[in-house]
Amino acid sequence: MKVAIIFGSKSDIEKMKGAADALKEFGVEYTAHVLSAHRVPEKLSETLSELEVSGVEVIIAGAGLAAHLPGVIASQTILPVIGVPIKAALDGLDSLLSIVQMPKSIPVATVAIDNSYNAGMLAVEILSIKYDDLREKLKAYRVNMKEKFIKENGQGVEI
Amino acid sequence: MKVAIIFGSKSDIEKMKGAADALKEFGVEYTAHVLSAHRVPEKLSETLSELEVSGVEVIIAGAGLAAHLPGVIASQTILPVIGVPIKAALDGLDSLLSIVQMPKSIPVATVAIDNSYNAGMLAVEILSIKYDDLREKLKAYRVNMKEKFIKENGQGVEI
Amino acid sequence: MKVAIIFGSKSDIEKMKGAADALKEFGVEYTAHVLSAHRVPEKLSETLSELEVSGVEVIIAGAGLAAHLPGVIASQTILPVIGVPIKAALDGLDSLLSIVQMPKSIPVATVAIDNSYNAGMLAVEILSIKYDDLREKLKAYRVNMKEKFIKENGQGVEI
Amino acid sequence: MKVAIIFGSKSDIEKMKGAADALKEFGVEYTAHVLSAHRVPEKLSETLSELEVSGVEVIIAGAGLAAHLPGVIASQTILPVIGVPIKAALDGLDSLLSIVQMPKSIPVATVAIDNSYNAGMLAVEILSIKYDDLREKLKAYRVNMKEKFIKENGQGVEI
Amino acid sequence: MKVAIIFGSKSDIEKMKGAADALKEFGVEYTAHVLSAHRVPEKLSETLSELEVSGVEVIIAGAGLAAHLPGVIASQTILPVIGVPIKAALDGLDSLLSIVQMPKSIPVATVAIDNSYNAGMLAVEILSIKYDDLREKLKAYRVNMKEKFIKENGQGVEI
Amino acid sequence: MKVAIIFGSKSDIEKMKGAADALKEFGVEYTAHVLSAHRVPEKLSETLSELEVSGVEVIIAGAGLAAHLPGVIASQTILPVIGVPIKAALDGLDSLLSIVQMPKSIPVATVAIDNSYNAGMLAVEILSIKYDDLREKLKAYRVNMKEKFIKENGQGVEI
Amino acid sequence: MKVAIIFGSKSDIEKMKGAADALKEFGVEYTAHVLSAHRVPEKLSETLSELEVSGVEVIIAGAGLAAHLPGVIASQTILPVIGVPIKAALDGLDSLLSIVQMPKSIPVATVAIDNSYNAGMLAVEILSIKYDDLREKLKAYRVNMKEKFIKENGQGVEI
Amino acid sequence: MKVAIIFGSKSDIEKMKGAADALKEFGVEYTAHVLSAHRVPEKLSETLSELEVSGVEVIIAGAGLAAHLPGVIASQTILPVIGVPIKAALDGLDSLLSIVQMPKSIPVATVAIDNSYNAGMLAVEILSIKYDDLREKLKAYRVNMKEKFIKENGQGVEI
Repeated sequence: MKVAIIFGSKSDIEKMKGAADALKEFGVEYTAHVLSAHRVPEKLSETLSELEVSGVEVIIAGAGLAAHLPGVIASQTILPVIGVPIKAALDGLDSLLSIVQMPKSIPVATVAIDNSYNAGMLAVEILSIKYDDLREKLKAYRVNMKEKFIKENGQGVEI
Repeated sequence: MKVAIIFGSKSDIEKMKGAADALKEFGVEYTAHVLSAHRVPEKLSETLSELEVSGVEVIIAGAGLAAHLPGVIASQTILPVIGVPIKAALDGLDSLLSIVQMPKSIPVATVAIDNSYNAGMLAVEILSIKYDDLREKLKAYRVNMKEKFIKENGQGVEI
Repeated sequence: MKVAIIFGSKSDIEKMKGAADALKEFGVEYTAHVLSAHRVPEKLSETLSELEVSGVEVIIAGAGLAAHLPGVIASQTILPVIGVPIKAALDGLDSLLSIVQMPKSIPVATVAIDNSYNAGMLAVEILSIKYDDLREKLKAYRVNMKEKFIKENGQGVEI
Repeated sequence: MKVAIIFGSKSDIEKMKGAADALKEFGVEYTAHVLSAHRVPEKLSETLSELEVSGVEVIIAGAGLAAHLPGVIASQTILPVIGVPIKAALDGLDSLLSIVQMPKSIPVATVAIDNSYNAGMLAVEILSIKYDDLREKLKAYRVNMKEKFIKENGQGVEI
Repeated sequence: MKVAIIFGSKSDIEKMKGAADALKEFGVEYTAHVLSAHRVPEKLSETLSELEVSGVEVIIAGAGLAAHLPGVIASQTILPVIGVPIKAALDGLDSLLSIVQMPKSIPVATVAIDNSYNAGMLAVEILSIKYDDLREKLKAYRVNMKEKFIKENGQGVEI
Repeated sequence: MKVAIIFGSKSDIEKMKGAADALKEFGVEYTAHVLSAHRVPEKLSETLSELEVSGVEVIIAGAGLAAHLPGVIASQTILPVIGVPIKAALDGLDSLLSIVQMPKSIPVATVAIDNSYNAGMLAVEILSIKYDDLREKLKAYRVNMKEKFIKENGQGVEI
Repeated sequence: MKVAIIFGSKSDIEKMKGAADALKEFGVEYTAHVLSAHRVPEKLSETLSELEVSGVEVIIAGAGLAAHLPGVIASQTILPVIGVPIKAALDGLDSLLSIVQMPKSIPVATVAIDNSYNAGMLAVEILSIKYDDLREKLKAYRVNMKEKFIKENGQGVEI
Repeated sequence: MKVAIIFGSKSDIEKMKGAADALKEFGVEYTAHVLSAHRVPEKLSETLSELEVSGVEVIIAGAGLAAHLPGVIASQTILPVIGVPIKAALDGLDSLLSIVQMPKSIPVATVAIDNSYNAGMLAVEILSIKYDDLREKLKAYRVNMKEKFIKENGQGVEI
């Protein structure tokens, strides 16, 4: 099992590494690729073919502004594509709309603005349908999350 | 393999049946449920438990206004949850933001406003990771879509 | 008489302590709780039951992004719920819409973005219907506010 | 116990009668008044004084456009004021922001755009703190709402 | 001839002094007043009466958030009221809409967000209808503005 | 005394005749002109010169979309210019921002979207600084407005 | 000289024929093509190559929702690409932002929402740099536009 | 061949020099002019005439707020006008709408907010229709861009 994380510029690493963090927490293998729908469309197509062949099962794509990358990827693969709107202008509203408002037949699974961690989590959830160990890890993750939350916050707080 | 489609009122059937249409096209079994995060929260929790037990693997949830249903479902299951923002006010912007802007750890895979068909398609893509026949059907779907598109539009148009 | 202030993370204390400040000014007892509709939904339900039993009469809930907490609380109690949209993205517009646009039958009394002080004030106004001393304090508060305002600003200003 | 419903024009009756409907369901007495913060400010002040004297405990105010009415009322009373943004332009966003974004100390409890029914419900919830019979009715309302919802929707739906 | 500049808090002086600057440039007398539609409505009404009596001919009012001050003033005077939306949240969009979207019969002459200088300029233009010397000064101002602009920028620029 | 009403197309007459209605109510002379900043800029400049010579004292300009007309007029006259945002797309938000957000020194007195009546009222208020009879008429207008409002709405309403 | 008009569905013909109308007025040859960046990306690339070879000099592309078509075309050609945002949801704001907010190096010349006529006009203006006869026609067009405008509107209007 | 870059204030140089950078990269001659549609409309008209006579073939105009400059220029020339929305308030949304939403017949080729570099690129693309050497440079630019992108990013990245 494997996930590919794709984004348009090395300057997006900080915004996108949340996806890698989530995948690492669950031991999901991933590779990361800097590719642009606008600058290197042929290289993007080529890489997508290679990724499919290499067994990638979910693609996470982050983009800002007129954020076409996730949709362009979705148009070239039948793998589920998760889109991360990166805030670069207009508080990220342009990125969000450019990613989520995909037309009939070519969906992109969009997560919150600048929330690449959730893209990683969603990839894990998707993969857990197939991989039982991931499902168990997800269950444990939720249990831990709750226990940790309650341990830290359970007594009420002073404000 | 099975999908559950959940929405808050029978009046949403028209908006949500695109999800069912897509699933039918691919022969994916589904059940549909009218449930509300605000009106019947206990019944919702109860049904979610039953759905998990019954082997549902993806949940599609549609909601409008302060559209909490998809996020509330996501907080109670580790299954991937696909959210459909239903337009009821403000051109659907309130629904979109209420669904997509989920906090860390609990993602909802959001599709376009009033585009439940794409929620169905995304569910198929997600399931196709596990089910090889679905993957083949998806490939065929894309090939057919392209052929049909080109057949209908290939000669150029008069305008 | 007692108010419960609920929010999703200790990092929100700074934004939410205005509510406590207002309640303290009026001598209204309150407790504060870090609880999340998405991370610990069962604990939230449990705490809500306890709060109702313990005689809480108004609940103030603050949340950001897809701010479901106030609405989810409102669906589980008949106490008046006051929602504070916390700005975390999109200038707080996502939080505002996720809180205020509640569907029929389950209202949330929404105040301004990041204005938890007003949530406290509103709780006092609500409680003052029942508690005569609070009503007197509110009247005095208004008189004082006006006197102070006029004392500070009454002579006109140089600009 | 009594509620006053105030709005700026007879043409708003259709939009505001949801508030009356909710109050009638719970047997809460109310009076309705057409008053404008901009056209008859003195008459508004005068009526507010009379309403306070007559024992009104909650005020519901609906307004559109630069919707000042709820805030202007809140500045002249210590009773809880519930604001209903009426859609007249910009999908009601102007009304919503003009009502909800009140400055420090003078809150307006804002409900969803064009959702005067929820203003009525919120008034009932507020009054139920003081009036035990209303609390019982609210509990019954919720139970009925759930039972009715489940009866109508419990079997799943065909889509 | 005289202008009154009104705003809700001393903390707005920095934002509002552009109005004073413009008036000073044209030798128009003005007074400035800190008054709030929400905190001291009676004092506001009282001051408005005094200002009218004292011969004020134009009122400039600045406000942020649910910016009711200009509209509330306009409802209590027949003098032209110029509104300055002050940015405090949502990039000032809430202030702008709360000021400009006034209902039939009670206009507020709205200028750009945080542009109190233009409020001063507009007051001068309005007064220049009556006062011939102001008209001459305005003509000279425009001539100077153009000459200065051309002198500074006339040769083209290097970029 | 005279007002000029300018707009870009005969198709805007319906939207702009509110301005004429208000002026007629007060017996203020006006002329109306179809002129476009984009289509006939020279004719616009020429007409503006003629209007100034002919003694026009206030200009009302209505425009939609990238609504440059009011600002372009303001740049060519020192008369007060009142701008009416006409809704043609985006609910009129584009028109509003294109009119109200004028840069330093060249203000446009902006009224509500599609509210040309208020532009007429504002013109009357501006002219009333100079013309005593208009001031008296404005006072009577307000008194009548209040009396009529109270007569029609004073008894409360049934809803 | 030749222009290609590209859009994603025959249902867009009504919205896009303004572009053809403008081109016809100037005698500019064009071809129209229904092509989708998401449905037939390979066919799109193939057609773009053919169009370049056939001597097309400007491309007009219209799209709605997450409107990727113009940007995807721009990434595959060095011809100037004119984008027409087609309104399909959110009043066309999603289309506008998805088209105009292109990243560094790959511009799309964006025109107003649903204004394909202006896309045609812009194509003519661009071509007129090279083709002298078009420049003359444009000059004549402007002269005619002005004459016609003045003839129709020159006498003032009654409102 | 020559391009004119026009903007309203020397303080915009930083935002507009991207246009010059792009033009320099391609060896396209340009001149830059500080001119304002609102402050020096006659000087603007005069300069536009001179620019046309001097053989300028494309105009780039940047403006913020109620950004009329590009549209006003477009109304006075038949040369293609490229508009750059400069962010000064509201995240640049006001500038974008004031530039892009031009009415029928007078288009402005709008690029992304604060993206003057793309305005330069678009000017180059437009000129390349006429000038073969520019076309070759554009082809080389794309090849270089791709090679550089792949060289820098081709190996995948660690995140």
